[in-house]
Amino acid sequence: MRDILPEEMEIREYIINQICETYSSFGFRRIETPCIENIENITSNQGGENEKLIFRILKRGEKLKFDMAETVEDLIDSGLRYDLTVPLSRYYANNMNELDKPFKALQIGSVWRADRPQKGRFRQFVQCDIDILGEKTNLAEIELILATTTFLKKVGLANFKVRINDRRILKALALAAGFSKDDLDSVFISLDKMDKIGIDGVKSELIKNNYDCEIVEKYLNYFSNDCSSANNFCNNKDIIIEDKVLIELDNVIEIIKSINETNIVFDPTLVRGMSYYTGLIFEIEVEGYSGSIAGGGRYDTMIEKYINVSVPACGFSIGFERLINILLENDYKIPTKQKKYAILLEKNSSISEIKESISKANKLRESGAIVNIQNKSKNFKHQKEVLEKEGYVLYK
Amino acid sequence: MRDILPEEMEIREYIINQICETYSSFGFRRIETPCIENIENITSNQGGENEKLIFRILKRGEKLKFDMAETVEDLIDSGLRYDLTVPLSRYYANNMNELDKPFKALQIGSVWRADRPQKGRFRQFVQCDIDILGEKTNLAEIELILATTTFLKKVGLANFKVRINDRRILKALALAAGFSKDDLDSVFISLDKMDKIGIDGVKSELIKNNYDCEIVEKYLNYFSNDCSSANNFCNNKDIIIEDKVLIELDNVIEIIKSINETNIVFDPTLVRGMSYYTGLIFEIEVEGYSGSIAGGGRYDTMIEKYINVSVPACGFSIGFERLINILLENDYKIPTKQKKYAILLEKNSSISEIKESISKANKLRESGAIVNIQNKSKNFKHQKEVLEKEGYVLYK
Repeated sequence: MRDILPEEMEIREYIINQICETYSSFGFRRIETPCIENIENITSNQGGENEKLIFRILKRGEKLKFDMAETVEDLIDSGLRYDLTVPLSRYYANNMNELDKPFKALQIGSVWRADRPQKGRFRQFVQCDIDILGEKTNLAEIELILATTTFLKKVGLANFKVRINDRRILKALALAAGFSKDDLDSVFISLDKMDKIGIDGVKSELIKNNYDCEIVEKYLNYFSNDCSSANNFCNNKDIIIEDKVLIELDNVIEIIKSINETNIVFDPTLVRGMSYYTGLIFEIEVEGYSGSIAGGGRYDTMIEKYINVSVPACGFSIGFERLINILLENDYKIPTKQKKYAILLEKNSSISEIKESISKANKLRESGAIVNIQNKSKNFKHQKEVLEKEGYVLYK
Repeated sequence: MRDILPEEMEIREYIINQICETYSSFGFRRIETPCIENIENITSNQGGENEKLIFRILKRGEKLKFDMAETVEDLIDSGLRYDLTVPLSRYYANNMNELDKPFKALQIGSVWRADRPQKGRFRQFVQCDIDILGEKTNLAEIELILATTTFLKKVGLANFKVRINDRRILKALALAAGFSKDDLDSVFISLDKMDKIGIDGVKSELIKNNYDCEIVEKYLNYFSNDCSSANNFCNNKDIIIEDKVLIELDNVIEIIKSINETNIVFDPTLVRGMSYYTGLIFEIEVEGYSGSIAGGGRYDTMIEKYINVSVPACGFSIGFERLINILLENDYKIPTKQKKYAILLEKNSSISEIKESISKANKLRESGAIVNIQNKSKNFKHQKEVLEKEGYVLYK
């Protein structure tokens, strides 16, 4: 975890404002859940590997009985959230009657994972999620992708590619090749490495994992099919899938492409880690940067685990810290129109001189400027340099 | 802890933007510290009673040795911050060389206290602090008070009163009456109740606490002195205090009064809870609401506990949740100029009709409007009502 210095905070704040402005123009509304969740809620296996990384919180007061505890579990009752999707599902289940239908949520908040810290990765980091709950048609996916690409263009990252796939195509393909249902998760973990290790790498890994050579061969051969559309790609009698799934995916691509010529392609190798996805999945990568900057998909069965009502859901998450890192690497400058003045008070100023300076500052502030009043320092030259470096003009 | 619904979030976001805008115009810069602090840092007795209310976090991985733990303390290494002042001091000590001098910090963030929840009080809540570090003159106090009163006026809470006092006057008065140095904290706890229980209540409490009747009598008599200025109030040979302290306090009042006719008064009964204050202390109360909406003061000796350098410091904290509650009680409306349109898609729209609607929405958004596209619901009447209630106009 780390302190954030003013220079970086300025960029973070600006980007958060741009996110809020953009998503709000699409009708998304901001919500907030507590950072602390009941331990049962965040260890119910919806979070996969992330559940092992939870910061756990001790019970308090009389409920904490150290001498009677048989395991660590007896001492804790809650933990810090490790993502925003699990809390959102609980939120929706708890507050459903007071929320719009469909509900378009925007969340920006810190999450915590007790990961081994790596370069550019910290144990507290900000996530930014948009989700549409209660919309079963692909209008949800279209809006999520359009809003996110609109935002990226706004902050100057226009060189991106949207990759899109459907978990049902992924499954149909693997089953058609001859894998069993129980193999799917493991097969997808290997497939997911395609961009890093290539098709030969995926092949060796699958064979190393003791899958039948013939099945692996057949499976990987599918990926040389015509990718120009999902419909063309799945044009093979072994692949058992509803036409509807293919048509919908191709329609989403066509609609999004038609708006602002967005670069979006069908990519049958796209996996997305979380097993809770049920339909379309998508990722955005920015040219020149490995990995994705945003990812999401449809998860129609998560909320019904909290309430016995089926609520279709679809979400998109921006890698906020990744985005900030890219902007910082590119020496990003915030567009600003505000004037900045520094007013320096001479040593031993009289009370009426002080009044006059402050009153002057106040007038400038009211007219929209940023004004910093300081006592004139002994080392005036250095003081002036620092102020000018920060964009202040000395006001006389 | 609680979920925050979209209606309240809109107001919170708006207010946070107003806070940022106002303080930024005074040259304050936003910073952030992690929500988790080392347990040693937040249990070092600077936080008084609040330290008992810390949410403590379990060690992780191999460091967690349940079987070998002799006390709960062996199992924990960190905790959630309970305020923003202690983390700020650590932040300044750690990052001093990269920060402006004087450094004007704005922090907005959640803090956690394992308090018994009460009406309107939660265990996670937002604090909003501004602090000026490295400024020994009263320019710091003046800027803090001016910035905060400017903000309150901006959000329509212009009916406020600023009360100001100095810890050194508080002490001088108690010592002059005959209390010993060790009595001070306890005497101030009683004095702090003046607005609630009146002077007779304070008197009974002090006598109940076994203080000498004569001393109590002499002490409370001081409070009928002329309060029109600190100088007049302390005009008594028993009260041993530097003239400088009195003149500075009176000057601060005069300067602030002269800007925008701010209502500010010297109040010798003002205590402020935290014992770390060393000089001027101040509070703002809004007419019609008991308790204060903002409070702060000078704490010149806190940072030197981290590093062996003396850094004068002065801070002001807005009661963010209190402020939001007051605005909600008054049915506060955000001034908004954005137009809001809803576009409804007919069932079985063709792909080109969908494209057309989305493209229309996009153009409206680019021109600054908020546009919500939805599939037309079976219960159109209800859908329309809900949208109109939220300010949307149906776009045709």
